[in-house]
Amino acid sequence: MVDITQKQNTHRMAIAEAIVQVSSPETMQAIANGEVPKGDVFEMSRAAGLLGVKKTAELLPDCHPLPIEFTAIRYETKNLEIRIEIEVKTFYKTGVEVEAMHGASLVALNMYDMLKPLDKGVEIRHIRLLQKRGGKSDVG
Amino acid sequence: MVDITQKQNTHRMAIAEAIVQVSSPETMQAIANGEVPKGDVFEMSRAAGLLGVKKTAELLPDCHPLPIEFTAIRYETKNLEIRIEIEVKTFYKTGVEVEAMHGASLVALNMYDMLKPLDKGVEIRHIRLLQKRGGKSDVG
Amino acid sequence: MVDITQKQNTHRMAIAEAIVQVSSPETMQAIANGEVPKGDVFEMSRAAGLLGVKKTAELLPDCHPLPIEFTAIRYETKNLEIRIEIEVKTFYKTGVEVEAMHGASLVALNMYDMLKPLDKGVEIRHIRLLQKRGGKSDVG
Amino acid sequence: MVDITQKQNTHRMAIAEAIVQVSSPETMQAIANGEVPKGDVFEMSRAAGLLGVKKTAELLPDCHPLPIEFTAIRYETKNLEIRIEIEVKTFYKTGVEVEAMHGASLVALNMYDMLKPLDKGVEIRHIRLLQKRGGKSDVG
Amino acid sequence: MVDITQKQNTHRMAIAEAIVQVSSPETMQAIANGEVPKGDVFEMSRAAGLLGVKKTAELLPDCHPLPIEFTAIRYETKNLEIRIEIEVKTFYKTGVEVEAMHGASLVALNMYDMLKPLDKGVEIRHIRLLQKRGGKSDVG
Amino acid sequence: MVDITQKQNTHRMAIAEAIVQVSSPETMQAIANGEVPKGDVFEMSRAAGLLGVKKTAELLPDCHPLPIEFTAIRYETKNLEIRIEIEVKTFYKTGVEVEAMHGASLVALNMYDMLKPLDKGVEIRHIRLLQKRGGKSDVG
Repeated sequence: MVDITQKQNTHRMAIAEAIVQVSSPETMQAIANGEVPKGDVFEMSRAAGLLGVKKTAELLPDCHPLPIEFTAIRYETKNLEIRIEIEVKTFYKTGVEVEAMHGASLVALNMYDMLKPLDKGVEIRHIRLLQKRGGKSDVG
Repeated sequence: MVDITQKQNTHRMAIAEAIVQVSSPETMQAIANGEVPKGDVFEMSRAAGLLGVKKTAELLPDCHPLPIEFTAIRYETKNLEIRIEIEVKTFYKTGVEVEAMHGASLVALNMYDMLKPLDKGVEIRHIRLLQKRGGKSDVG
Repeated sequence: MVDITQKQNTHRMAIAEAIVQVSSPETMQAIANGEVPKGDVFEMSRAAGLLGVKKTAELLPDCHPLPIEFTAIRYETKNLEIRIEIEVKTFYKTGVEVEAMHGASLVALNMYDMLKPLDKGVEIRHIRLLQKRGGKSDVG
Repeated sequence: MVDITQKQNTHRMAIAEAIVQVSSPETMQAIANGEVPKGDVFEMSRAAGLLGVKKTAELLPDCHPLPIEFTAIRYETKNLEIRIEIEVKTFYKTGVEVEAMHGASLVALNMYDMLKPLDKGVEIRHIRLLQKRGGKSDVG
Repeated sequence: MVDITQKQNTHRMAIAEAIVQVSSPETMQAIANGEVPKGDVFEMSRAAGLLGVKKTAELLPDCHPLPIEFTAIRYETKNLEIRIEIEVKTFYKTGVEVEAMHGASLVALNMYDMLKPLDKGVEIRHIRLLQKRGGKSDVG
Repeated sequence: MVDITQKQNTHRMAIAEAIVQVSSPETMQAIANGEVPKGDVFEMSRAAGLLGVKKTAELLPDCHPLPIEFTAIRYETKNLEIRIEIEVKTFYKTGVEVEAMHGASLVALNMYDMLKPLDKGVEIRHIRLLQKRGGKSDVG
């Protein structure tokens, strides 16, 4: 684990995205119409993502625990794709990129779990960092 | 949550894959030569994946907790890609697809976390189910 | 911890209820109209409850871990009260009463958390078991 | 999740109470005489409450993780009621009300779990905030 | 992870012990007299051990999750030593030795944590398996 | 729980050690040659230790949660013993001795778990604090 004891707190932000791809327009309609039997796909997956961001350091051995001071999850749908964007912020000695990536993956996995009874062809694509601010280098 | 109290235990298996894509050949060499400062990327990520499979139901609201009776994690590298294949088995009333997908995502995220200091362009691609056996329908 | 190694699996069910009482009609309207800034109170609290039921044995020292095979959460509102009813089922050697009570408390606590910025007078009342089936005695 | 990155650390305190009501004087005597088979009800429930306060943000999606810097749990008994009072403190950007409420609920639930073999009529009543200090408004 | 999908459930039992050694008779007297400021050392550590047994598979990557169907924790004191004996049982496909060892270590660590303000010389010695029954070989 | 709200952050460090003793030279050779079927004993146990340090406050009721800002795990082998040394650092109001002890115990327990199929006589010995800096008193 990198030694961060001598570093200063600074404002950190990271935005990650994940793409969930379904295999038929009926799946997208079921989501939009609130007809997925397991519940509201967007709200339940938001809950999974908010909790997941906070559990990142518990799952990844080398990741520093840090105070999650803001998380927002936004959705966009287009054709057969749901685009998940997750933004995480902290005021601490190290960044929140991995937390944002982890949150994005959990939102996507929860959609997979909720949609599996309806659609066997759901896949997760392109979990990637879109932006970060704070620390030695900005990205995006 | 789907009611599974009346179902019978059967043998279940699922295989999922995730692709981690790095941005330069130097990253692949650092992994192969054991020169990543955070440690052995394959073994540490295997640990994260084994633990992650077991924590799936704790992270996804609608997912049944189930006895994980086997997990194996295999790696293949080619050019700038690391292919992660994870196999999960149980003898229970419901399948292990989501557990395999979750494990694959955590192996991939742990690689992202360990490689981040060396390579800012690591992305996770194509987390998807390759195969399942048991339950109403086989896939793959 | 009670020794259950010699007991047989039987079908178990428990229903618990919790009452959340808010302090003004404006709070109830904000929930109904989807105007609570933290999100959809019913869906987010359902997610917290589903996860909480599964984490009961991790929080209460003497409680047996057991396979949660069904959880349903239902809501009713009347005047200033939200009534939460949660039903849990398993096929195992011991009952799910505590799991149902724990889930009910987490649904209620999550409502408290989400409503706190709007209403300082939210209270939780009457977390109690309504019904159980299976085991030595039925209740309710 | 509310964005707290720009807020200052201040001293925060919250006190919550929960009431556990048993259904017979024999239950109260068993507790007082240390005759509950699962162990010392007050000490075991204190352990559950201390751990529970620290796990609040892991269970409630929208709750900020924060450094728990003090927790105390006090008991009073009268007739058929056990009154649990829990006090939590931190020096951070947001308050500890939900943590105190969550701790109170877990102390009460653990009593329910320990007393269940003796008394089928135990209920939890009135989990509520008694006092808070710090932040925009004091209560109590 | 060893593949246990084809194994049969059998009755399993394991007993592990840990020795906590304090550095002065005053420490032993403070424990016996209930004068340790953090609380009742035996009861609080029992709670930590009961919970710890259930969390073993969450902490050790290669360990199968299994239904903990009985745990008992016993203490003996002699001179400057506290001997912890922990017994765990299940009816499952694999044994509970690691769970018993993990529980023993957590009881011991919790004593270390509670006694640290009084005694800087507390050590944990000899965490070892005393007995197991079930599976291919019995021990002890 | 000790009230630390009025204390100042200072640099804290603790080093703990655990000794794992195997029962035959063949076990030591299997480790050194990478022939333990469950994987690389040193790397997998490092992962368990890194995660375990971060989970200390979740397992021990009276332990303050704190930001783990550095963890290193070192190994030495001699005859039939593996010596584990773990160093933890933070910049906070209270020390990391218990975290170092807990991490050491988990590294040792994971070795026990991985070696159990090969060697039934593995024991954990002497989990103890070697050094601490920061706070009222230095040790070691």
